[in-house]
Amino acid sequence: MAKSIEPRNEMVAPTFNILNLDQIEEARETIKYYIRRTPLVKSMFLSNGIAFGDVYLKLENMQLTGSFKFRGANNKIQHLTDEEKRRGIIAASAGNHAQGVALTGKLLGIETTVVMPNEAPQMKREATHGYGAEVDIHGATFDDAHLWMNERAKLEGKTVVDPFNDPLVCAGQGTIGLEILEDLVDVETIIVPVGGGGLISGIATAVKSINPSIHIIGVQSENVHGMKASFDAGEIVTHHDNFTLADGTDVATPGDITYEIVSHLVDEFVLVSEEEISTAMKDLMQRTKIVAEGAGALPVAALEAGKVDRKWIENKKVVALVSGGNVDLERVSQIIEHFLVPVDTHHCGIG
Amino acid sequence: MAKSIEPRNEMVAPTFNILNLDQIEEARETIKYYIRRTPLVKSMFLSNGIAFGDVYLKLENMQLTGSFKFRGANNKIQHLTDEEKRRGIIAASAGNHAQGVALTGKLLGIETTVVMPNEAPQMKREATHGYGAEVDIHGATFDDAHLWMNERAKLEGKTVVDPFNDPLVCAGQGTIGLEILEDLVDVETIIVPVGGGGLISGIATAVKSINPSIHIIGVQSENVHGMKASFDAGEIVTHHDNFTLADGTDVATPGDITYEIVSHLVDEFVLVSEEEISTAMKDLMQRTKIVAEGAGALPVAALEAGKVDRKWIENKKVVALVSGGNVDLERVSQIIEHFLVPVDTHHCGIG
Repeated sequence: MAKSIEPRNEMVAPTFNILNLDQIEEARETIKYYIRRTPLVKSMFLSNGIAFGDVYLKLENMQLTGSFKFRGANNKIQHLTDEEKRRGIIAASAGNHAQGVALTGKLLGIETTVVMPNEAPQMKREATHGYGAEVDIHGATFDDAHLWMNERAKLEGKTVVDPFNDPLVCAGQGTIGLEILEDLVDVETIIVPVGGGGLISGIATAVKSINPSIHIIGVQSENVHGMKASFDAGEIVTHHDNFTLADGTDVATPGDITYEIVSHLVDEFVLVSEEEISTAMKDLMQRTKIVAEGAGALPVAALEAGKVDRKWIENKKVVALVSGGNVDLERVSQIIEHFLVPVDTHHCGIG
Repeated sequence: MAKSIEPRNEMVAPTFNILNLDQIEEARETIKYYIRRTPLVKSMFLSNGIAFGDVYLKLENMQLTGSFKFRGANNKIQHLTDEEKRRGIIAASAGNHAQGVALTGKLLGIETTVVMPNEAPQMKREATHGYGAEVDIHGATFDDAHLWMNERAKLEGKTVVDPFNDPLVCAGQGTIGLEILEDLVDVETIIVPVGGGGLISGIATAVKSINPSIHIIGVQSENVHGMKASFDAGEIVTHHDNFTLADGTDVATPGDITYEIVSHLVDEFVLVSEEEISTAMKDLMQRTKIVAEGAGALPVAALEAGKVDRKWIENKKVVALVSGGNVDLERVSQIIEHFLVPVDTHHCGIG
């Protein structure tokens, strides 16, 4: 079943069997009439002023639902049996997986429930509701919502669509890796936001199956970095210190499937501060003319803050993933105000 | 010299000789190693919720310098003689042409001066200065700056690079039309922001030379619409009523060259209010995850406000041009605050 992999250099391609290139290529066929193939756009300010290499942005903020999550949710749900679909689906999400599940449920005519924590941004709740899903606000954090989702699934017999800890979800996200290689065949470094780890698991499996020398860097917030802590500890541990602007990656504990893949395939992790995330969000608006949510700005934050070793970016072909753009505009306004010099009464002094 | 044009239907292709398809195809070759081929992205919210057709956004806000103006400036300057280049170039601009001229001057090693009016946004001034051009702030409006530019050009023997009233500038902008046709061969309606008229002149000439049945709609602000007023009057007239958020199209009097092309090739004009421009800017951030400047949001404003007759959009393939993204973030913040319900002290009550 598994396609024989011929790596393009002497490094070893991944061979363990949680997730493989076949599944990702199959996902690509499965979701191709639903998802958007997003643009890969070179950023001049990051290339010339920051990295001294060629930096491209993969704009998953322009994916339908405003984030990459639609890919994995769509792939997973299309693979459910008729019986599983008939029972209705349930998911837990800080917001982007919610929208991916809700839109897929709507398109396929499946009853959908999404458990979201109190901290989920208003626009993500509204969009999820707008796609026709039942929105169940429960608990303070994603982890609380996740527990309650499992509870409800058992009580009501619903089919769980996990936001990351599922090979079919990871395979959907991995289709991004295939698109990157098609657009930039000689990419050398890929920088990816990490929460539960589904996105980086899929991308790393896809690209390292084809070219194991591609260097994969995960980025998390200093305030919440369960995957980085687990990666360092050599076992699954929990990390949640404080609020983060990167609500999309606000996951304290990685899944066992994603942890397994990440610990084999990701080369390194870096952390960024809240101030660095804000700066990246501002600069992406000002210089690149795009709106990124906090999680979506993590890789650019890592580049701008000098957190990525020069050897992986200088004179290299680099892709920084902008994973999503679902941010409340009030938050955008706060970030802009934060960076404005307070010259007049327009300045609110917040942020 | 002029290529024989074979229209795809019985309508008549443009044949007058100010500007033709040959010049635009030649411009495309001339500028191809300098400019970025920008993405054409389908907007689901405009397609499904507004137009009930297929609406695509041509993202010239992602062009180098943040606007389409780089195309025309680059084409014009590359066509100058060595003697004209040696004398140094001078331009007048509310900001985007300034950046296009300044970046081209920098890339080609030509001394560059740009006259900008007081009302030019801070970020456009800084970016122009950042490309190494001398920035000369003069007069209250673009028209004042334009007069002073002609004065300085005479006094100092500099070579003028007009922002719109020049066939080589229009030809550069027209390359956008060729890209649109390559990406969406069966486009039926194209909606374009209009200031001096260089952009719509180039696009209309390009696409109507290939398919004269494509319907071209120009959009201006209610507050400043010299071209629409001239189009209606059948002769060049001036219109400037008030401040507009669309500073990039804040041109009271069209040029004679652009007026001539527009009066032959543009099908109709519509006007939008400042509130409609603000709404479009907000929705482009929230729904499409892009930052558009006021002028860049004019076509989306026209669609959202119902200013475009349904027969040109319903069940049609429509392209709305997002011409630029150079807007001060303080202005972005004001617009967001304007739309927020004032629930707490974060609200400044402005905009």
